[in-house]
Amino acid sequence: MSNRDLVPVYDFVDGLVAAGVTDAVISPGSRSTPLTMVMARDGRLRTWSILDERSAAFFALGMARVRERAVVLVCTSGTAAANYLPAVIEAYYSEVPLVVVTADRPQELRGVGANQTVDQLKLYGSHVKGFVEMPVPVDTATLRQHARAMAVRMTVCATTPPRGPVHVNWPFREPLIPPRAMAAEDAHDLPAVVHPGRLVPAPEAVAWVLDTLRAAERPLVVAGPQQDRALAVRLRRWAAREGIPILADPLSQVRTVEGPGDAVIDTYDALLRSPRASSPPPDWILRIGATPVSKVLGQYLANARECQIAVSPAADWRDPWFTVHHVIQAEPLALLEALEQAASDAVRPQRQAWFHRWRDHNDRAREAIRLAIRSHDTDRMDLEGRLFLELADVLANDAVLMVGNSMPVRDLDTFFPTLDRRVRILANRGASGIDGVVSTAFGASAGEGGGGVWLVIGDVSLFHDLGALSLAKRLGLTLRILVVHNDGGGIFQFLPQASERDTFNHFRTPHGLDFRPIVEALGGTFHRAGTWAEFREKVGQAANAEGLVVVELRTDPEVNRNRHAAVMRAVQEAVLE
Amino acid sequence: MSNRDLVPVYDFVDGLVAAGVTDAVISPGSRSTPLTMVMARDGRLRTWSILDERSAAFFALGMARVRERAVVLVCTSGTAAANYLPAVIEAYYSEVPLVVVTADRPQELRGVGANQTVDQLKLYGSHVKGFVEMPVPVDTATLRQHARAMAVRMTVCATTPPRGPVHVNWPFREPLIPPRAMAAEDAHDLPAVVHPGRLVPAPEAVAWVLDTLRAAERPLVVAGPQQDRALAVRLRRWAAREGIPILADPLSQVRTVEGPGDAVIDTYDALLRSPRASSPPPDWILRIGATPVSKVLGQYLANARECQIAVSPAADWRDPWFTVHHVIQAEPLALLEALEQAASDAVRPQRQAWFHRWRDHNDRAREAIRLAIRSHDTDRMDLEGRLFLELADVLANDAVLMVGNSMPVRDLDTFFPTLDRRVRILANRGASGIDGVVSTAFGASAGEGGGGVWLVIGDVSLFHDLGALSLAKRLGLTLRILVVHNDGGGIFQFLPQASERDTFNHFRTPHGLDFRPIVEALGGTFHRAGTWAEFREKVGQAANAEGLVVVELRTDPEVNRNRHAAVMRAVQEAVLE
Repeated sequence: MSNRDLVPVYDFVDGLVAAGVTDAVISPGSRSTPLTMVMARDGRLRTWSILDERSAAFFALGMARVRERAVVLVCTSGTAAANYLPAVIEAYYSEVPLVVVTADRPQELRGVGANQTVDQLKLYGSHVKGFVEMPVPVDTATLRQHARAMAVRMTVCATTPPRGPVHVNWPFREPLIPPRAMAAEDAHDLPAVVHPGRLVPAPEAVAWVLDTLRAAERPLVVAGPQQDRALAVRLRRWAAREGIPILADPLSQVRTVEGPGDAVIDTYDALLRSPRASSPPPDWILRIGATPVSKVLGQYLANARECQIAVSPAADWRDPWFTVHHVIQAEPLALLEALEQAASDAVRPQRQAWFHRWRDHNDRAREAIRLAIRSHDTDRMDLEGRLFLELADVLANDAVLMVGNSMPVRDLDTFFPTLDRRVRILANRGASGIDGVVSTAFGASAGEGGGGVWLVIGDVSLFHDLGALSLAKRLGLTLRILVVHNDGGGIFQFLPQASERDTFNHFRTPHGLDFRPIVEALGGTFHRAGTWAEFREKVGQAANAEGLVVVELRTDPEVNRNRHAAVMRAVQEAVLE
Repeated sequence: MSNRDLVPVYDFVDGLVAAGVTDAVISPGSRSTPLTMVMARDGRLRTWSILDERSAAFFALGMARVRERAVVLVCTSGTAAANYLPAVIEAYYSEVPLVVVTADRPQELRGVGANQTVDQLKLYGSHVKGFVEMPVPVDTATLRQHARAMAVRMTVCATTPPRGPVHVNWPFREPLIPPRAMAAEDAHDLPAVVHPGRLVPAPEAVAWVLDTLRAAERPLVVAGPQQDRALAVRLRRWAAREGIPILADPLSQVRTVEGPGDAVIDTYDALLRSPRASSPPPDWILRIGATPVSKVLGQYLANARECQIAVSPAADWRDPWFTVHHVIQAEPLALLEALEQAASDAVRPQRQAWFHRWRDHNDRAREAIRLAIRSHDTDRMDLEGRLFLELADVLANDAVLMVGNSMPVRDLDTFFPTLDRRVRILANRGASGIDGVVSTAFGASAGEGGGGVWLVIGDVSLFHDLGALSLAKRLGLTLRILVVHNDGGGIFQFLPQASERDTFNHFRTPHGLDFRPIVEALGGTFHRAGTWAEFREKVGQAANAEGLVVVELRTDPEVNRNRHAAVMRAVQEAVLE
């Protein structure tokens, strides 16, 4: 073996670039040296260096989410590759394209006790869309063509809907230092150019959906988590024209795009707890996107029999209640375009009444929430969800809002209002882990277009990804974090575990951690907001700051639960009036 | 389903206890509530609560290492389980028994878009010794017997040599709160009592090994990483009587047990760089334990043809050089006992010369190292490896020394001297990752018997597991950490990547982090030692302190490399004299 045998690595990188890859997230290590050196020297790829592979993978996930293109990950052999698994699983279920490239020992060093050698074949099991074991590189025309072809093929696999992660395992034999560049005679044909297709619905299916929804008296759209903003814009416009209310999960993007939001119902999580608001039942429901966050909405869908139409390009429509009745196989945007093309007649009177009833309930609920919050104690930090109302006023056009799992995403769902502004809302809802959330937000920061990134997160989740706070300084990134610090897992206050006091510390897990010195040690700015006035002041400062800014809200989970219940009651009363 | 249906969880815990489990490491979550509550209430199990599942799994690994018994891990569904993978892989290759219990959604909620639901079946692939998917619990006699039986069976699987991790995936349906206790009528038969066997060598194999080693003129023992201290004691005694030098990896424990260390060669990593010391070649080598850390020793073994005898209970003897010539299938201790029983004749004269030559070289090398260190600049921190010489003087009897991968374990190998004291030396050499090292050390601290735990670690590895520093305060544990801070990966200074300056920051990865405020924020004490005199002072203080104590040594990797080379030259010259 000579260094020259590493030339196929150049071809691989050429293939990645040809397939549209722009960024590689690299963790340090020895076995991956050929990949690291070739990528770091390639002027066409931007490389990011992150020490902790778990963090690196979530960072790549966040970047791929906002870029809407595949991001490459590179690490050395052994447990380094194992640290990618949590983010790979999240990427698989949330359909985010990642090209994971793990360096490995050559085949002859496997299973015989060589150092740092583990079984990396199919390491991510059923959580990747594709896996390829590369040959140990040799400088032959065939292996160079193969390396180019695999780079293209695996990137296309990752970016073809449903998108997701792919795994390239690449064994390298020493020496590991690649030649500094390919020589002129190394020029070669470019790899295949792939022209992506589009899964459109069958014309009969479109006609049937049109007829069905036109005839419906009480139709609804339920928009679950999805990333396509063009789809969100169209959905708002089409539903308003057709007189169909959209129960819009905040992660559907439908609450936060430009254009009139007349059809958007954003208080269903409070409304559907009231029998008055949740009956009569809908007669047809068009479902777009993944499973909604709201448990209340989930229960509503579980009870909606023989009337649900899901749109999904593959066999993976999300329906944990087994109540979906029709599945339209198509990219959702393609179906929407087809529905929009069929110009609508005037909306029928019964339909008008249904639409305006939902609108009226939504307005009442929204007003009841505002009143309940304001009338109680204007400034006291007793309701965590209020931060989403406060924050909504501050977010700039094209801002990114990343929200942690467990309580923050639920409060987002309950409280975040509909805006006439483009805000991209992200959460790791593929597997709904509390791990890697800070890293994902930093990845979004590295990938976003200029509106700034805000992260709302609980203290347990922030603690879980503590090391990622170093990424601001390390990579020169800006991130504003609002941490709801109730010293442990506040969500358990809402669950039956709370009444079993003797074991409750295994769920609440109070840790007593003060984040301030850690944030400051990592070069960040830390503020603590004790009142909403302080919160507005600190958030205003954060909006104009660079680097890492953390604003902490100290809350009491028991007080929060009681206030939350009071606000929900106020909504129910408002609907009864 | 009723809460009553969770009764089999009690049976499972009974089975674990019956099989010898004493500790469970639990991470918070909702789906795992039945397991958490039953274990937390069971007076026979000690439960440890750790937020980050990656950290929790390494903690369990460290505890299982020093306890030499299986430790249970419990987590909720989703990426929580994925975070265990790095430690599961390490446990698999380093043969540490873990019983990993992951809670899951019931089968009807999988693959249909239910929240926090991922494919947990065989999630750890080929890196567990056993996997079982439990049925959703129902209160029937059969399912209760099954739960007890699986707890015993899987624990026995984990603890039968070669030991390793096992995975129990347990789906639970709501409600998740178990009944507070089993009623009196719930008494049941105890599960099977398993009487472990022992893999002893064939008598003919023992006779052949005896004859071969007796006839050998230049025999060696190479002792690689292994945990059995009784084996280490016997090996020292037997080899001294037979006149066979032992090249003893520090992780073989042979350097650090009681009794005379006459046969122990601890400077081979320096010696075997010298042609004078490495010839003539051995005529027979008895190999015990896993692959040694030293690359120099590895090269020596690669060149030792048709003379290597390995001892291994399974088909997994460690031989990345394909030069092992005979494999004795047996537990190493069983072979040693058999060899010891055959009383030896007087050692032959040629053998005596061989033995004394190795002893003499070892004494010269040891003295040359001491002189080279002392004569240069008594107090300047220019050679990182010196800390192991300094630390060796401080370690109490029964102390535990955990060493990080990359440079610390290599410096340990090169510099740590033979002692006549019991010190257990640990490192994660199964997969040799730099991840989870702090957590592993805390697990050792929770499991050890009173001699105290010291951790020597590099700054990159410490950074990788930063959140684990919180475990001292959270769990009331004591750990003394010596961090060699050269601001990045010092090992790359020794590798060819160092001469490629344009991409070197992707390998060295300087981070500029000051650990002091972080350690202090987490309730620890931080010292910085600028000279060896300060080092001795701070380490002396640390030896008597409780909680988390971190002593930082700031070094320059380039200076260290040069001094390291100078010491190696001094050893070679000493052997030539």
